[in-house]
Amino acid sequence: MNMVSIIEKKKLGQELTKEEIEFFAFGAADGSIPDYQLAALLMAIRLNGMSRQETVHLTLAMTASGDVCDLSAIPGIPVDKHSTGGVGDTTSLVLAPLVAACGVPVAKMSGRGLGHTGGTLDKLESIEGLSISLSEDAFIRQVQEIGIAIIGQTKNLAPADKTLYALRDVTSTVDSLPLISSSIVSKKLASGAQGIVLDVKTGAGAMMQSLEDSIELAQTMVRIGCDAGRRMVALVTDMGEPLGSHVGNALEVKEAIDVLCGRVQGPLLTVALELGARMLMLGGKADTLEEAREKLVDALESGRGLEKLRQMIRAQGGNPACCDDVAKLPQAPVILPVPSPSSGYVHRMDTVGLGNTAQAMGAGRRTKEDVIDPSVGFVLNKRIGDAVETGEAIATVHAKDEASAQAAIAAIQQQVIIGAEKVPACKLIHAFVTDESITRY
Amino acid sequence: MNMVSIIEKKKLGQELTKEEIEFFAFGAADGSIPDYQLAALLMAIRLNGMSRQETVHLTLAMTASGDVCDLSAIPGIPVDKHSTGGVGDTTSLVLAPLVAACGVPVAKMSGRGLGHTGGTLDKLESIEGLSISLSEDAFIRQVQEIGIAIIGQTKNLAPADKTLYALRDVTSTVDSLPLISSSIVSKKLASGAQGIVLDVKTGAGAMMQSLEDSIELAQTMVRIGCDAGRRMVALVTDMGEPLGSHVGNALEVKEAIDVLCGRVQGPLLTVALELGARMLMLGGKADTLEEAREKLVDALESGRGLEKLRQMIRAQGGNPACCDDVAKLPQAPVILPVPSPSSGYVHRMDTVGLGNTAQAMGAGRRTKEDVIDPSVGFVLNKRIGDAVETGEAIATVHAKDEASAQAAIAAIQQQVIIGAEKVPACKLIHAFVTDESITRY
Repeated sequence: MNMVSIIEKKKLGQELTKEEIEFFAFGAADGSIPDYQLAALLMAIRLNGMSRQETVHLTLAMTASGDVCDLSAIPGIPVDKHSTGGVGDTTSLVLAPLVAACGVPVAKMSGRGLGHTGGTLDKLESIEGLSISLSEDAFIRQVQEIGIAIIGQTKNLAPADKTLYALRDVTSTVDSLPLISSSIVSKKLASGAQGIVLDVKTGAGAMMQSLEDSIELAQTMVRIGCDAGRRMVALVTDMGEPLGSHVGNALEVKEAIDVLCGRVQGPLLTVALELGARMLMLGGKADTLEEAREKLVDALESGRGLEKLRQMIRAQGGNPACCDDVAKLPQAPVILPVPSPSSGYVHRMDTVGLGNTAQAMGAGRRTKEDVIDPSVGFVLNKRIGDAVETGEAIATVHAKDEASAQAAIAAIQQQVIIGAEKVPACKLIHAFVTDESITRY
Repeated sequence: MNMVSIIEKKKLGQELTKEEIEFFAFGAADGSIPDYQLAALLMAIRLNGMSRQETVHLTLAMTASGDVCDLSAIPGIPVDKHSTGGVGDTTSLVLAPLVAACGVPVAKMSGRGLGHTGGTLDKLESIEGLSISLSEDAFIRQVQEIGIAIIGQTKNLAPADKTLYALRDVTSTVDSLPLISSSIVSKKLASGAQGIVLDVKTGAGAMMQSLEDSIELAQTMVRIGCDAGRRMVALVTDMGEPLGSHVGNALEVKEAIDVLCGRVQGPLLTVALELGARMLMLGGKADTLEEAREKLVDALESGRGLEKLRQMIRAQGGNPACCDDVAKLPQAPVILPVPSPSSGYVHRMDTVGLGNTAQAMGAGRRTKEDVIDPSVGFVLNKRIGDAVETGEAIATVHAKDEASAQAAIAAIQQQVIIGAEKVPACKLIHAFVTDESITRY
């Protein structure tokens, strides 16, 4: 087998065989194929595409290129959720305890945030003492004991994807459906969950901005997962504006606790319950959506969800006091309102811009080396469709100093776009996608 | 300017600006842009193409990326010829002396052969003592004094092309019209000739196998050259079979001398005269094609052409005795006939195969490091359309030993394809291409 002829086939728009795909995926993982050949192939794939079969082969090859977690020691069907990345999206911290409280084991290996989207690990680390670095044994033992653990990647998962992803970033080949799908799914397959609910974001703040592209991405990923023998479904949910009202690490933990305490309802809870219900069904703990929703609501209202979060924090060395008093979470020194520059209705949000504002305040990373300030961020008081008056606080910034606060205020005033006419609120859930069907809402 | 956005533009099929093209060409030359980004861009160019304007910008940027020879000290209009590469194609050694004898200065920087095609430098080096390594001063002085010099590249011509060409070879992006054209023309522009006649080969042994592709390549290159302010025209000539009957370095020098002595006519002379006539016109030494042909024929018949070759060999330190006795050229120890395996007519030739046979005998290089044996090769006794009898010698091999001779005989018996029906001889000249017109013959 030789790399030039593999590149040539894809250049001519032909289908690559399983063996050819494994050749370059394993070569990407072990460094035996030079970057320039991988880069040429990635561009040929970006421009000429990949069939469903090719995409499955690529995903499985990338999974097989590294370690694969064995969760078989965990009783039941371990279920995971994966989001394609959003702003103010802390559904994991809401649904994982609720799902675990309903008896479905949640063994989640999560990622750090990069760019304008936050990461679950960064949010968890704003809890005093909590560690996300567990050994695989400790991870499995914790799930066996309390039914839930959320940790960072310990093993060498899908190294072929690491190489290819780094190259795609610098060769303008990120925006390829087969490459995006195989990248996401290969890591999920390697992390060992048997059931996976994908949360594919759509709209201004999402990877895919059009609904049709988002549905296509969801369908492509679900098909790969099912072809690979896992239970996989996807919800396509809205990212035209931040999902929760809180953006920033400790702020998002606070919002998750507020929801688990029953103090706050709204879009974050709605989406968390929808995703969680699908997880319960994949995990075999509910036969119908109604039954699943009822169980989750019961876990919420009974306080068993919040108790599960407390158990997890404690098990991972953290101080669960924040579950009873959110003021124990890191607090920013400067808290200021963002006055609305005009009257009218919120027409839309520059969601990527809002994510970047949080990042600039210190809540996110521009490069992997950046250190996060857990306390900073902002809370939005308005959603798309809400009426606003000039001078009314559309948001509150939580900043490390006055200058940072003022910069964020000016940015948010630009990023929340106000117009004269009334507009409807955003739909939260756009579609449900299985291997066989697409249901639009 | 940043490389990712340049790649992205080309990925989306947009036109790159002069500044963007210079950015990556200069970056390729000075090593500041990583190979993987260049490789991704090359694939995007291969798949999405380049406009005429972009191709001109790329050519000029590659020329400007290195040294440019200044031939202004040479009186008259220095004219060069460039072939896209063929088998048994020693037109340079025939036409350069004839054209110089007619008063057009020939200052030729030539290349070495690689793959199945021969190179003029390798052929010249089969002449005892001849050096192709002259300083630029000595090169110009020789052309001033005797009107002709053929040497290897002394300077750093078009280093951007060197980088890109090396990458194209290993990323399956050789077969791109704008990349092929800009690569060839950038080097020709850098070598300083004011008039350039391109010999674009077409057919089984050529880079472009279809006539239409060959004409398109010719037109693309001619337009670039003219847009760059040079006098440039192209002939599209046949490479469905080797042009001369001799294939191999000393053998091809012998054939050139045979032609310049007037002992041999045929396709090699015909094509050399056509190309040479265009050179005379570009060099301002003839107003019409008829006048140019007459002058060349006069230079041939008067022996002034052969005398010019003698002068050049002497000036470059070689022994011109071979001009009077071709037996003074290196001789192979084993000379054997290739008996025809059947009767009929020569239908076609596997011209690339024949080139590879010569290479395998030691006449060419597989890698840059291979050392050439000047004496080896073969002489074809038949052309397409000729009748053959079983057992009749269709060729004669000149080999370094018996084993090599037998291998070559077996190969040539496969590569000269004989059929039952009579077929016509090949047309030699297919088209003449200028900036403004295409004339088909």
